Amino acid sequence: MDAIKPQGILEAALYVDDLDAAIRFYEGVLGLQQITRVDNRHVFFRCGRTVLLLFNPEETVKLRTGSNLPVPPHGSIGAGHVCFAIDAEGLERLAGHLPANGVEIEADFLWPNGARSIYFRDPAGNSVEYAEPRLWFSG
Amino acid sequence: MDAIKPQGILEAALYVDDLDAAIRFYEGVLGLQQITRVDNRHVFFRCGRTVLLLFNPEETVKLRTGSNLPVPPHGSIGAGHVCFAIDAEGLERLAGHLPANGVEIEADFLWPNGARSIYFRDPAGNSVEYAEPRLWFSG
Repeated sequence: MDAIKPQGILEAALYVDDLDAAIRFYEGVLGLQQITRVDNRHVFFRCGRTVLLLFNPEETVKLRTGSNLPVPPHGSIGAGHVCFAIDAEGLERLAGHLPANGVEIEADFLWPNGARSIYFRDPAGNSVEYAEPRLWFSG
Repeated sequence: MDAIKPQGILEAALYVDDLDAAIRFYEGVLGLQQITRVDNRHVFFRCGRTVLLLFNPEETVKLRTGSNLPVPPHGSIGAGHVCFAIDAEGLERLAGHLPANGVEIEADFLWPNGARSIYFRDPAGNSVEYAEPRLWFSG
């Protein structure tokens, strides 16, 4: 089984109903670097060695007949979740940065092992978390 | 903005209707290492320095009244998407491993930059992809 073991998550996906609002939020407020946008279908952001995919589910549930890349359809409705890794200093700055940019912090607490998480919503209602990696990984 | 820049994605979430079937698939077929399971609510898997979260949306849309950790509710219906990083050799092995374990490969192709992706479905219908990181990152 080790032969097929992945190195880690390369892409996480969220679904949003308004790509423009999502870009204003993820690029404008969170400072992620946009890689590409395709019409009203999707926008992707670079984040370290990983990629955040934001899809409009109305488009991604369709088979892509116009493309020669056979990307399978997908798409969901309802609040998704993603968590980004950040250090304690970054979290402390985020706790000031979000309210200063009109973003309400929904939760800000320490897990039993002492790692801190901050939760807030993106414009589509997805639950976005920033957490210290020591929540899961020591060293 | 650099002060609040995350290091990368720490957790990606998918929603599944059957945690037992999900465990048989992600642990038994894909070989991910289970971290924790909580009743019929969720099961988490370690994957390199990232974590795959599988949630039962019927449970996660509820406020967690029994917990003193104020984790915000979330939950979605419909096929989600996640992509794992793997090298070319691992992909080639995966292309044999999946059919040998009764998992149909839905797509297997090269992107314009030459990176290979393999797509298949988990038991809940989520679109799971394994791809070479050079799809997004050089070096």
